[in-house]
Amino acid sequence: MGPRGATRTVGMRRYRDASSKRERDAVAVEEPLEIRLSWTECDGVASTDALAVTMRTPGDDFDLVAGFLHGEGVVRRPAHLLEMSYCRGEEEQRYNVVEARLRPGVPFDRGRVRRNFYTTSSCGVCGKASIEAVESHGCVALPDDGFRVPPGLLGRLPSLLEEGQGVFRRTGGLHAAGLFDAGGRCRVVREDVGRHNAVDKALGQAFLRRALPAGERALVVSGRASFEIVQKSVVAGVPVLVAVGAPSSLAVELATRFNQTLVGFARDGGFNVYAVPERIA
Amino acid sequence: MGPRGATRTVGMRRYRDASSKRERDAVAVEEPLEIRLSWTECDGVASTDALAVTMRTPGDDFDLVAGFLHGEGVVRRPAHLLEMSYCRGEEEQRYNVVEARLRPGVPFDRGRVRRNFYTTSSCGVCGKASIEAVESHGCVALPDDGFRVPPGLLGRLPSLLEEGQGVFRRTGGLHAAGLFDAGGRCRVVREDVGRHNAVDKALGQAFLRRALPAGERALVVSGRASFEIVQKSVVAGVPVLVAVGAPSSLAVELATRFNQTLVGFARDGGFNVYAVPERIA
Repeated sequence: MGPRGATRTVGMRRYRDASSKRERDAVAVEEPLEIRLSWTECDGVASTDALAVTMRTPGDDFDLVAGFLHGEGVVRRPAHLLEMSYCRGEEEQRYNVVEARLRPGVPFDRGRVRRNFYTTSSCGVCGKASIEAVESHGCVALPDDGFRVPPGLLGRLPSLLEEGQGVFRRTGGLHAAGLFDAGGRCRVVREDVGRHNAVDKALGQAFLRRALPAGERALVVSGRASFEIVQKSVVAGVPVLVAVGAPSSLAVELATRFNQTLVGFARDGGFNVYAVPERIA
Repeated sequence: MGPRGATRTVGMRRYRDASSKRERDAVAVEEPLEIRLSWTECDGVASTDALAVTMRTPGDDFDLVAGFLHGEGVVRRPAHLLEMSYCRGEEEQRYNVVEARLRPGVPFDRGRVRRNFYTTSSCGVCGKASIEAVESHGCVALPDDGFRVPPGLLGRLPSLLEEGQGVFRRTGGLHAAGLFDAGGRCRVVREDVGRHNAVDKALGQAFLRRALPAGERALVVSGRASFEIVQKSVVAGVPVLVAVGAPSSLAVELATRFNQTLVGFARDGGFNVYAVPERIA
């Protein structure tokens, strides 16, 4: 992690009832991160391209980049990544550009990144095409190989996630994503102002530790479950996705198609299961 | 709005305490929308390009497209937009592609769209550059021309926003954005699974009604205040931004730079002001 912290203290005026006073408050840092990829073409020529700029909270940047690249299908195994480093530059932007180098021989198809999860040529722009695009990235339905989460644990996962969060408690302003085993032990938790970034960081960390596919883990996210969150977790082989908030229609469809257990509105005392309840036992 | 609704009913299993039962539940629809632009080059040649694909909740799509185009600086006045229409296509994707036609003579610079709010050439990728990029789009500091919001109203705005939401109550799964006057009257409220889409829809609606710059309005958003939300509201000339959640560091910096009043953690009984408290009186 670079010298920029995940929180910054700012001045603000707090209004309560009829009075107000000047105070200091910690806010979550948001800074752009450019993700650059360098790779070797078939003819041996080296290429570099900026794949994305994302607004993120500094910290765990290599996890974020690894998770992004794995989620987009650019790398499938840790060995595909030769190295990751911050690009040199002026002080101001020193920790805002990460370059990932692919191992020579690992193919890279520029056109497949990012937009292709939303559109394919088969039916144009629609939810069905978005789901087909995940299939075209080589994802298959998640197997049922016996992983189960007890219902009594599920409602407690959001508060276990919160316990694992450091920055959140200070700012109230961060999304979190964490991987848990069936005993409720937190294996990794990551935070970010962007919920897809928090997921990329958590899954990227697991990827770098060679823990993907995460066939015996539940991914818990602090926000809602959208298409993109389901897509990322399906690519990572996560059989159970637990959201504190609501799922979208396309999240339910995608989870159903890929045999992923999708839980929404998880809280103490209850939760709703929108797809594949068989893993809850 | 097309034939697809903003909510869809799905089957789910509800777990409460020790029991579970099969129920039906409404979820927010999420579908991709491709935003296409057609324009006339200097030499009279007609061009068309897909600018973006966003995952959105169907409904108010023309508001969304107009708000997106205005927020990106592609159109500055309603007259710049000749028309907007759904593209013909197969039934499945019929309402998922909107083409906006620029009036001949309105210049369009492809390279300026989207990424340029994150990066400029002056200092590369950093928060400072992101703020400079908003300036380079022609935004100037918001004037102090006497618009004031009473502190007693501010904490009530989130519940007034919720009153204006229809879909949210059924699904619990939608972000909302609304424009309010100083008397607490809601002028427009829009919903979406994506918080930036909700803002684009609300501001786009105001744009099409020739109500921008919205110099006498507060924009209320259901989520957090990030760089992108502040940027969109500054471009729309909104002097007061009220978020139910926390602001990010870059949101505070951007609001301060453009003299926008930024309120966070708004709720009954209190709120915090992170920039320009002078408009609260």
